[in-house]
Amino acid sequence: MYIFGHQQHRLKNKSVREKLYEVIFESETSASKVFDFLLMGLIVLNITEVILESVYSIRVKFATILNFSEWVFTILFTIEYLLRTYASKSRSGYIFSFYGLIDLFAVVPSYLGFLFPGIQFFSDIRVLRLLRIFRIFKLNRYLKESRFLTRALYESRIKISLFLSAVFLIVVVIGATMYFIEGHINAGFSNIPLSMYWAVVTLTTVGYGDIIPVTAIGKFFAGMLMVLGYAIIAVPTGIVSAEMRAIHSSDLNDRECNNCGLSIHDDDAVFCKHCGNAI
Amino acid sequence: MYIFGHQQHRLKNKSVREKLYEVIFESETSASKVFDFLLMGLIVLNITEVILESVYSIRVKFATILNFSEWVFTILFTIEYLLRTYASKSRSGYIFSFYGLIDLFAVVPSYLGFLFPGIQFFSDIRVLRLLRIFRIFKLNRYLKESRFLTRALYESRIKISLFLSAVFLIVVVIGATMYFIEGHINAGFSNIPLSMYWAVVTLTTVGYGDIIPVTAIGKFFAGMLMVLGYAIIAVPTGIVSAEMRAIHSSDLNDRECNNCGLSIHDDDAVFCKHCGNAI
Amino acid sequence: MYIFGHQQHRLKNKSVREKLYEVIFESETSASKVFDFLLMGLIVLNITEVILESVYSIRVKFATILNFSEWVFTILFTIEYLLRTYASKSRSGYIFSFYGLIDLFAVVPSYLGFLFPGIQFFSDIRVLRLLRIFRIFKLNRYLKESRFLTRALYESRIKISLFLSAVFLIVVVIGATMYFIEGHINAGFSNIPLSMYWAVVTLTTVGYGDIIPVTAIGKFFAGMLMVLGYAIIAVPTGIVSAEMRAIHSSDLNDRECNNCGLSIHDDDAVFCKHCGNAI
Amino acid sequence: MYIFGHQQHRLKNKSVREKLYEVIFESETSASKVFDFLLMGLIVLNITEVILESVYSIRVKFATILNFSEWVFTILFTIEYLLRTYASKSRSGYIFSFYGLIDLFAVVPSYLGFLFPGIQFFSDIRVLRLLRIFRIFKLNRYLKESRFLTRALYESRIKISLFLSAVFLIVVVIGATMYFIEGHINAGFSNIPLSMYWAVVTLTTVGYGDIIPVTAIGKFFAGMLMVLGYAIIAVPTGIVSAEMRAIHSSDLNDRECNNCGLSIHDDDAVFCKHCGNAI
Repeated sequence: MYIFGHQQHRLKNKSVREKLYEVIFESETSASKVFDFLLMGLIVLNITEVILESVYSIRVKFATILNFSEWVFTILFTIEYLLRTYASKSRSGYIFSFYGLIDLFAVVPSYLGFLFPGIQFFSDIRVLRLLRIFRIFKLNRYLKESRFLTRALYESRIKISLFLSAVFLIVVVIGATMYFIEGHINAGFSNIPLSMYWAVVTLTTVGYGDIIPVTAIGKFFAGMLMVLGYAIIAVPTGIVSAEMRAIHSSDLNDRECNNCGLSIHDDDAVFCKHCGNAI
Repeated sequence: MYIFGHQQHRLKNKSVREKLYEVIFESETSASKVFDFLLMGLIVLNITEVILESVYSIRVKFATILNFSEWVFTILFTIEYLLRTYASKSRSGYIFSFYGLIDLFAVVPSYLGFLFPGIQFFSDIRVLRLLRIFRIFKLNRYLKESRFLTRALYESRIKISLFLSAVFLIVVVIGATMYFIEGHINAGFSNIPLSMYWAVVTLTTVGYGDIIPVTAIGKFFAGMLMVLGYAIIAVPTGIVSAEMRAIHSSDLNDRECNNCGLSIHDDDAVFCKHCGNAI
Repeated sequence: MYIFGHQQHRLKNKSVREKLYEVIFESETSASKVFDFLLMGLIVLNITEVILESVYSIRVKFATILNFSEWVFTILFTIEYLLRTYASKSRSGYIFSFYGLIDLFAVVPSYLGFLFPGIQFFSDIRVLRLLRIFRIFKLNRYLKESRFLTRALYESRIKISLFLSAVFLIVVVIGATMYFIEGHINAGFSNIPLSMYWAVVTLTTVGYGDIIPVTAIGKFFAGMLMVLGYAIIAVPTGIVSAEMRAIHSSDLNDRECNNCGLSIHDDDAVFCKHCGNAI
Repeated sequence: MYIFGHQQHRLKNKSVREKLYEVIFESETSASKVFDFLLMGLIVLNITEVILESVYSIRVKFATILNFSEWVFTILFTIEYLLRTYASKSRSGYIFSFYGLIDLFAVVPSYLGFLFPGIQFFSDIRVLRLLRIFRIFKLNRYLKESRFLTRALYESRIKISLFLSAVFLIVVVIGATMYFIEGHINAGFSNIPLSMYWAVVTLTTVGYGDIIPVTAIGKFFAGMLMVLGYAIIAVPTGIVSAEMRAIHSSDLNDRECNNCGLSIHDDDAVFCKHCGNAI
């Protein structure tokens, strides 16, 4: 194929291991891009298989196909794991890295389930194969927008943590109060952790309805909590909006005018908007 | 009538087919505006009829009226379909266009239901007549604000797709985890697709309460998911806000530079940022 | 009292009717402010009474007090109504105005209930006394922030109407689809209006759980709807945010520099930030 | 220890009480920071204990440990209370301050529960020990972001109060309407306070499903309310976003003017807007 031929030409002065490293771990060459997208396709197929296999009627009906495809996936991913270990610059570095552990934990359960077929646990943990889903996040590097979103979330991490801490304090205080108010007469509030669970369900406006206040004072209090939850959702929204705006602005404006020194220019500016000097 | 008289004057040098094209497909002349709004009125009436007909007690009580009005609508919309086919510049182009197919699929079920009265399916698919609702979106072209909103959504399509992908990944991971935690003891989590459905219901704060966690660890995990769903709603909001602001700004600043004709300037710009000419 | 003495001095050249008009309908003088706040106090008390009276146990226990207070309120509000009719510059104008009709409809039910004590309906419509709550909105004129909020909502009324229309179209389409999918096997989707009700409950993330999809395809479809509802809430938020910002900006900046003509200055600016000229 | 040695050197000219005041009430010295974080650790442990103790199975199983640790915490917090009272500049000032009362109310219930072991009430109010959670807010002073968030909320307090008042009026009007529509046939709407509770549950999109409309008109009305609730959540979000932006802007622009010392300038300001001096 042309693509691979082209790659081989570029890679001819490198060892097989170096070539493998470029293809598997980097994303500059077309071969590595092809590898990335083939791998993603395999992972998506594999995840679909694991999800469908969990449905009893499908598991019974398509037992043979699912079993066969599981082994195909397991062998392919085992080969990938071995190639990665072989090609990586620091082998122990890869093995104990986040993705290295995921690649391992996603392969081992299938072998364990094969070795100990009678033990339910080893059959269950094959769900760990879903861990491969995290590999999909690697595709992010191809998208500028993804970096924008993650940077906006990263920049607002302290503010969001503070917000979540405040939510947690509210949940403790309100959980304890409802336990005090309804604990004796309503099984749904019979202890503080359960009341706190109710408070989270209510504050976040999920509202399952599995635990509900029954007394008038409890309902009044619950109503206050709902309005609070409805209003404070404005806080994370405001935080993220502000960060996105800040990033947006700073991304657009980073050229300095030689004449007046103004550094805030629009993306499409050719002349400084203050002094009229060409940038 | 005056309007039509006025139109006839303007249209007198054109063939009937060209005149029909202007009235039916364009929106510049008053005749075509009248046609658009009459058609919208008919569609709204027709949709109301289809919705009401689906209610058993109404269907039984007003059988004659509903039957009669269905045929009136069917004949009117059939005439409209034939006229559109006749008038369109490229007939096959119209027939296989999005709106052409909608116009066809909205008419055919009534005839099929008449031809095969005993077959339930042909009676059911008469609900397809509701497809005409998409014609209503054509009214959008009359509204500047509509273009603003659709543009804001269009500009943020990649970021919103990314957000939805991230939501999907979260749903898979959490669905699988809850299947692992509660799958053996709670019928609501007996397979991963069902757990994923629960995860969507919870993450989006809908919270039907048809599937609820029963174990302490499941409730703790569900609480985490709720808080996550409550917090990340900030992301789409931030995205759309930022786009609306960006579009708004560019709309607001429409002073034109006399030199280069650039019309997008900042509120506080004194010199054209493209050519350096004073505005 | 001093306040009234002070008012009488200022008002001495005016007729009683003119004085009454100033006190009752305007809000410049201290007497009219006192009148406004006294009236608000009465209305709040009256509304509390109507709400409490609807509770059976309270209605039985405090029958005498509630009955008595109802007549006190009715007489006071009747006097207010008569004074307003007397003092207003255009009597029929007041009587047929929004507030005039509210004042009337809030008083009449008590008399009707007294005249026809056996008829349940006249007892029920006494809840109309709650209409007085709309008077409370008159207090808004004392608050700059209230004008800011109402103006932000007013400016975005077309965009919000468009959004609500789009929500309505989505609800029709999805209601009809779910009726088609689950109508035959799930009583909750047995007609399109009911399916539309479910679609609203789901799209707005309320999620009562009284109607839930039971088939796999129905659940999949419901999940899509939830994610859609979760994402498009960003649209009204973005609209209102953008309007608030626009109003905020235009409020702050409306002084023009005589030298360079720049009209966008900060609230606290004394010199033009572009040319250094005093504003 | 080094830290304390260093402190002793700095504090040698001060009385024990002054030293204690610095350590306990202030947060400049390292000793006081160590004290703050140790206290927070104790409070978190204590709160965990109170929460766990409320669970029956845990209370029974770990009775001895929980009892013992309660007394350790009680004695430590009593010592802290006495030290605070001793060290504070104005003793009655501390005792009747917000934190002073919390420190007292968090300690007293344990002693009351010990003195009157048979009385359930004194056992129940030991949940008051959770009041210590408010001490955690003191940590806020270490975080700039916390001041940012509280300032944003503080600046928007009037607008948010207005929004909540409007929500309250909507809840009253809709509660009364639903009481009128469904009150006679649906126990969930049998009085106005209950209908108002339903209105809050629905408007805030919590949607427990414990009270649901049963009539067609009731469902139609409920749908309107849901869409309203879904749309007006944009208002608090817009308010807080606008405040955060305003604060953010003023924080970002802190170049100081050499002439007049004004430090709040726009990003693109070239001249000081107060004195006209070039920055």
